[in-house]
Amino acid sequence: MIPFLNLQALHAPHHEAYHLRLQHILDQGQFILGEEVTRFEKSFAEFCGAPYAIGVGNGLDAITLTLRGYQLLGKLQPGDHVLVPANTFIASIIGIREAGMVPVLVEPDPETYNLSTKDLEKYLNSKVRAIMVVHLYGQLAPMEELIAFAEKLQLLLLEDAAQGHGLPKVGNHTQTYSFYPGKNLGALGDAGAVVTHEVELYQVIKQLRNYGSDQKYHNELPGVNSRLDPLQAAFLSVRLPFVNPENEQRRAIAKRYTAEINHPLIQTPSIADYNRHVFHLYVVRCAQRDALQQYLFEKGIETLIHYPIPPHKQGAFPELHHLPLSFTEQLHREVLSLPMSPLLTDEEVSYIIQTLNAF
Amino acid sequence: MIPFLNLQALHAPHHEAYHLRLQHILDQGQFILGEEVTRFEKSFAEFCGAPYAIGVGNGLDAITLTLRGYQLLGKLQPGDHVLVPANTFIASIIGIREAGMVPVLVEPDPETYNLSTKDLEKYLNSKVRAIMVVHLYGQLAPMEELIAFAEKLQLLLLEDAAQGHGLPKVGNHTQTYSFYPGKNLGALGDAGAVVTHEVELYQVIKQLRNYGSDQKYHNELPGVNSRLDPLQAAFLSVRLPFVNPENEQRRAIAKRYTAEINHPLIQTPSIADYNRHVFHLYVVRCAQRDALQQYLFEKGIETLIHYPIPPHKQGAFPELHHLPLSFTEQLHREVLSLPMSPLLTDEEVSYIIQTLNAF
Ligand SMILES: Cc1ncc(COP(=O)(O)O)c(/C=N/[C@@H]2[C@@H](O)[C@@H](OP(=O)(O)OP(=O)(O)OC[C@H]3O[C@@H](n4cc(C)c(=O)[nH]c4=O)C[C@@H]3O)O[C@H](C)[C@H]2O)c1O
Ligand SMILES: Cc1ncc(COP(=O)(O)O)c(/C=N/[C@@H]2[C@@H](O)[C@@H](OP(=O)(O)OP(=O)(O)OC[C@H]3O[C@@H](n4cc(C)c(=O)[nH]c4=O)C[C@@H]3O)O[C@H](C)[C@H]2O)c1O
Repeated sequence: MIPFLNLQALHAPHHEAYHLRLQHILDQGQFILGEEVTRFEKSFAEFCGAPYAIGVGNGLDAITLTLRGYQLLGKLQPGDHVLVPANTFIASIIGIREAGMVPVLVEPDPETYNLSTKDLEKYLNSKVRAIMVVHLYGQLAPMEELIAFAEKLQLLLLEDAAQGHGLPKVGNHTQTYSFYPGKNLGALGDAGAVVTHEVELYQVIKQLRNYGSDQKYHNELPGVNSRLDPLQAAFLSVRLPFVNPENEQRRAIAKRYTAEINHPLIQTPSIADYNRHVFHLYVVRCAQRDALQQYLFEKGIETLIHYPIPPHKQGAFPELHHLPLSFTEQLHREVLSLPMSPLLTDEEVSYIIQTLNAF
Repeated sequence: MIPFLNLQALHAPHHEAYHLRLQHILDQGQFILGEEVTRFEKSFAEFCGAPYAIGVGNGLDAITLTLRGYQLLGKLQPGDHVLVPANTFIASIIGIREAGMVPVLVEPDPETYNLSTKDLEKYLNSKVRAIMVVHLYGQLAPMEELIAFAEKLQLLLLEDAAQGHGLPKVGNHTQTYSFYPGKNLGALGDAGAVVTHEVELYQVIKQLRNYGSDQKYHNELPGVNSRLDPLQAAFLSVRLPFVNPENEQRRAIAKRYTAEINHPLIQTPSIADYNRHVFHLYVVRCAQRDALQQYLFEKGIETLIHYPIPPHKQGAFPELHHLPLSFTEQLHREVLSLPMSPLLTDEEVSYIIQTLNAF
């Protein structure tokens, strides 16, 4: 069986380093925030090309705390509307709602499945104050045009970069990251970060994650508890240097998939620039998606669906069920994520491609 | 220097077990929920004398998710008022507000600093629907009278047991726990749990902690991300069998403190029943608290203050600043937490007592 992603094997070379970090933390006795967290924050900020990073509990909290932070700075208000792609992981939308704001679900670009400025105007209303870009599957959204659009309309732009570790930085907008274990940079548990160029936002979110406190027992802001564990920070520090080289390996696999998959019923993704994609996922489309998945499974190839049910059709959001998002719904019926990991061998990739072409 | 709490030493006997658990989790490759979490939940529920436990991100989230869970079950509503002691860690109050409810801050009982039914009626208004008991410092609040009060007035009763691991269970009310590293049962990072007798609440909170999802990609409830990491669950499973024996050691130290501290300016806590106290903290009072702390520090004894600023005077809550809570304020000026840990030696305890008596 070729697994979708073999996390055990991915972490195997780092076992010794992980044990050393655990021992170091046991010896130091610092289990909340402190030096390991600060060190990872510094190196992750640098990795992202930004001056500040704040480690938080997970990628969803990173979104919520960012929006709450902007509210405390007066740049957003509860009740403001936020444009967000309709075909994202549900957490992007939950984060907006957890911050007391209103998600406006936008049909994605038919080429990239990302937000683009095409038709974006038709989602505007007088309450729209922000755009949350999601670099879905690891492909950079068209930032240049989105930035111009946001500037023209004086909208705040945010990037949900949960699937985009290692993307080139276009602009200096605040980004939120998830280190869910399956991500291109994954922890050994839940973890996330906010990356920003804005020192005020940095200072506010540092408090928001820690009961609103910067100094022990002084709670100046309405905060919560959402801290990156030092252990996870230490594990992430071990993995960080491998992300860019692994992204290169992902790119090489993606190039082969695109070049060699040639089944008429299977549509490979449209990728304008491989340097603007980190291939968290390689997602094909097929009108007979479920049959294809079953066929591949029988041939020993594990695939996943990102995602089978669009957010606006989830039981949690009855008030969104009526939305006319037919392309998003079509995507959810047709997408299939092929095995993607830096550990796939040439032979495995060949076998996957041959098997697909023989469907 | 006698530290307030020496966590390195407390964990030292478990280093090997922790490394084994880390290795086991690396070998299994399950870094989110799964068997380690379920196993800890089962044994912690049993430890608490309840059928269900749900591991969550931390003790604050345990409170928020419990209140949100009760809202989804129709037992509470956003905007409802909740009675809560005014002298608690700020997280009890943040949790109520994060669930969209209104904390009503109650002056504590002058004997125990906990909620009691004395004068409790005067805090009632038509919107009060719940009481959140906090077993402050590890002392069980007078549950029998509080339960009778709650039943008479048809109020929901909840226990913030963040400081009360191992207390006897009185009644079958839902409890929230923190496994912050400094707690009687502490993780190596952030962690928490909800413990309940109510199967519906259990099912709802299991979803709320996981993006509202019970089954992958099916999001039925408005949830968040607040999961107990398998690693922390595994570490907690290692420590759990030691909590009751360690609580006995804490009791023995507390008995000596109470029996032997005899300085006229230093008031030891009033403890009706040592079996109803797990001595997370041993807190004395002194009108010259700051001088006493400084004196002890110079004599090599580390103490902490739980807490120096009452929640209603925090910058985060300007709308509470006006509240007339003079006893709570007095407590915050006078309390001092003496070193308390199962590792304190008889000699250290003797030295602390002698030094206090010579103030
Ligand atoms: C755009 C966007 N915004 C915000 C978020 C929210 O971030 P979060 O709060 O940190 O989750 C996400 C998260 N996004 C992801 C989401 O994409 C989805 O990811 P997924 O690929 O379906 O995840 P998965 O199937 O559980 O794991 C992927 C593979 O990895 C293997 N695996 C996984 C785990 C956890 C393991 O322990 N062992 C394994 O072997 C199994 C699978 O083969 O579901 C997750 C729960 C979210 O965190 C996002 O995509
Ligand atoms: C009633 C009630 N309800 C809800 C909550 C919320 O739960 P939470 O969200 O899980 O925090 C609390 C939390 N309560 C505690 C609160 O009591 C307070 O605890 P504290 O004793 O002041 O904590 P501390 O001084 O940081 O640690 C105690 C000792 O332990 C040492 N230590 C500590 C750490 C973290 C370390 O890594 N290494 C160490 O050596 C230093 C100190 O000597 O502050 C914490 C942040 C809260 O989690 C509560 O009391």
